[in-house]
Amino acid sequence: MVSKELRVNRQRLQSTLQEMAKIGATPGGGVQRLTLSDEDKQARDLFVKWLKELDLEVAIDEMGSIFGKRAGKNNDLAPVMSGSHIDSQPKGGRFDGILGVMGPLEVLRTLDENNIQTERPIIIVDWTNEEGSRFAPAMVASGVWAGALDRDWVYGRTDINGKRFEDELIRIGYKGPVPAKKWPVHGYYEYHIEQGPLLEREGKIIGAPRGILCLHWYDVYLEGEANQVGPTPMAGRHDALCAAAEMILKVNELPERMGGNMVATVGEIQNYPNSRNIIPDKVHFTVDIRSWDDDHALKAWELVRRDFENIAAGRGCPIKIEETWRVEHSPFDEKMVQRILDIAQELGYSSLHMVSGAGHDASYMNQVCPTAMIFVPSIGGRSHVEVENTRWEDCEAGANVLLQAILQSANEK
Amino acid sequence: MVSKELRVNRQRLQSTLQEMAKIGATPGGGVQRLTLSDEDKQARDLFVKWLKELDLEVAIDEMGSIFGKRAGKNNDLAPVMSGSHIDSQPKGGRFDGILGVMGPLEVLRTLDENNIQTERPIIIVDWTNEEGSRFAPAMVASGVWAGALDRDWVYGRTDINGKRFEDELIRIGYKGPVPAKKWPVHGYYEYHIEQGPLLEREGKIIGAPRGILCLHWYDVYLEGEANQVGPTPMAGRHDALCAAAEMILKVNELPERMGGNMVATVGEIQNYPNSRNIIPDKVHFTVDIRSWDDDHALKAWELVRRDFENIAAGRGCPIKIEETWRVEHSPFDEKMVQRILDIAQELGYSSLHMVSGAGHDASYMNQVCPTAMIFVPSIGGRSHVEVENTRWEDCEAGANVLLQAILQSANEK
Repeated sequence: MVSKELRVNRQRLQSTLQEMAKIGATPGGGVQRLTLSDEDKQARDLFVKWLKELDLEVAIDEMGSIFGKRAGKNNDLAPVMSGSHIDSQPKGGRFDGILGVMGPLEVLRTLDENNIQTERPIIIVDWTNEEGSRFAPAMVASGVWAGALDRDWVYGRTDINGKRFEDELIRIGYKGPVPAKKWPVHGYYEYHIEQGPLLEREGKIIGAPRGILCLHWYDVYLEGEANQVGPTPMAGRHDALCAAAEMILKVNELPERMGGNMVATVGEIQNYPNSRNIIPDKVHFTVDIRSWDDDHALKAWELVRRDFENIAAGRGCPIKIEETWRVEHSPFDEKMVQRILDIAQELGYSSLHMVSGAGHDASYMNQVCPTAMIFVPSIGGRSHVEVENTRWEDCEAGANVLLQAILQSANEK
Repeated sequence: MVSKELRVNRQRLQSTLQEMAKIGATPGGGVQRLTLSDEDKQARDLFVKWLKELDLEVAIDEMGSIFGKRAGKNNDLAPVMSGSHIDSQPKGGRFDGILGVMGPLEVLRTLDENNIQTERPIIIVDWTNEEGSRFAPAMVASGVWAGALDRDWVYGRTDINGKRFEDELIRIGYKGPVPAKKWPVHGYYEYHIEQGPLLEREGKIIGAPRGILCLHWYDVYLEGEANQVGPTPMAGRHDALCAAAEMILKVNELPERMGGNMVATVGEIQNYPNSRNIIPDKVHFTVDIRSWDDDHALKAWELVRRDFENIAAGRGCPIKIEETWRVEHSPFDEKMVQRILDIAQELGYSSLHMVSGAGHDASYMNQVCPTAMIFVPSIGGRSHVEVENTRWEDCEAGANVLLQAILQSANEK
């Protein structure tokens, strides 16, 4: 049962988000707060200040992740954790990540002003470099913390200017003393904008993903034959870009051919020599396939891979395929997901049992402890863009669900 | 009638070409002699030295083009001209351009050692910046000389490092005193490798193009909607790269749909944000259409343009199209073209009456005086690449045809 009267303060949550949105604000109405940049540091400093105002026990780990711990009645019990990330995409939005850090902050402020003590401690967390857009890959700090990634490997990652992750961490003063190593956690909740259009299309306010889709990344390399376009007849050409174009359309048609819930995308392409009067002789492009069903995704890939090979043979363009990354689908804790749905109903918010197409720090946390996420609608489904937006009443709704979920978990003995 | 005994010296032509190929030689067996680079200067210096060894009257014009004039019996008559270019593509081949400068040099050497005087003067020319790969556009020096381009506009063109054409011309010491302004010319012959596969496929040695194809250049800009690929269902996406892929295939199919002699190519594409997990929201690509028949090319464009608009509408991706450049087809002087074919036959070389798909300095010269070209086979049809190659006996054959053609023109009263 939810505490009927206990609610977050919408105005305070809104002001807090607006305050954060000033840091790295872009002319287009978004934010640019790249990992370990000056803007990231400024936002972290403000976050730490707010944590200290709540008398939380603040700890920075060696990956720069920031933890704020609120004591429980019994501090020998494993804590409940909630958080997300402060960093943003280049020209990103004002909600992606930051809502999942300011949300639990608002929850703790609400508990404080209501003098509520929980059985278990509660920890709020900002994970370093969730986006992976300055330093690839994404979600490295939760990955190291969960034991899935190697700390020193991440330290050595460089940005496009050759700056090392570790050096930048030291530069902004956030290489902390605490080992980035998992500890027992009773449950992890991550509050996030949906970053897709489903909640809006379905007219729902709260999304409870049953987990995160599997993810397959491939890199395709094609070779053609470069020649002056004018004197080279169409017959006998080996045009690597035409071969790529056929393949891109095959990827785009794949979900409809396969049926079931699946997305498939070519997001990146490089063409060489990329001169308007030379037939392309080299093309690289990427393939991203996601589904709840790992086997289904694999079968789809096998199908489109055969298409690729036929197209390559037909155009006389040798093909090389690399399987760059495969992550299996990640089902969240069923009881916690159901809790989200139940709380939404009790609070009078419409809800949707769905899946998460995007990866989140929750993916790595799901390897450590029972995990669930709370989604609220993205207007127009837009994210990773400056116009990314979410209604304030929806931000409030999600925070209220988070408040009750944290309370229930933190009072479990 | 050809002079039965007079022939160029294959060994000397080969050595001369090999000597030039050392300047800017690349590890892959090609040359890199970008316009107005140190390598260009070095090759020019050697060329001028060779011109002076023949006691030619050397003149450098204000575009840096180098002219070597051999006196005729009657120097009041308009001269016969022949030449091409010394500059190369980045990682270009050892024959493109340079064969058309060393060829007439070998012709003049042959005339000299045989003490042959012609009625008319003969001028050999190296046109500055035919390639246009360091300073766009191509063929600027012959363009200015012919009155088709403005000298000061070309002077102000910059390379990717911001260096001005005129400054680089001065730097290498080739901004000459002679105005770049056309004078009366009796006839212009340009000797060049084919840069396509037709001669080889047909088993012919000498190509006599009846002219240069028309050329249409278009720039297409598409807009899509960027979103995270994972949470964005396929339905409702506006993927600018998928729209571009459909259009690229339409361009590729265009010549077959239209019939007739035509080539159509997409050589260049830029995709944004070009990130593997974001749906592309901006794509730019180029279209190059060439045909002997200007109307046919225009009809083809109108057809594919309608396809583009339908595809753009179907995918909800707004389209913008720019008509970047249109040049009508350029028919060479019929009598001179026939002369090339006749000489080839008399010398016992097989020949092909064909068209030139590529532009050449001959295009601008064709606006000034009767013009024709002589092609010899490109092995595998390859050009603008380091492996570009032509057999020495074919280089010799083309030079022998050029020798006779120049002799006949230069003896016309």
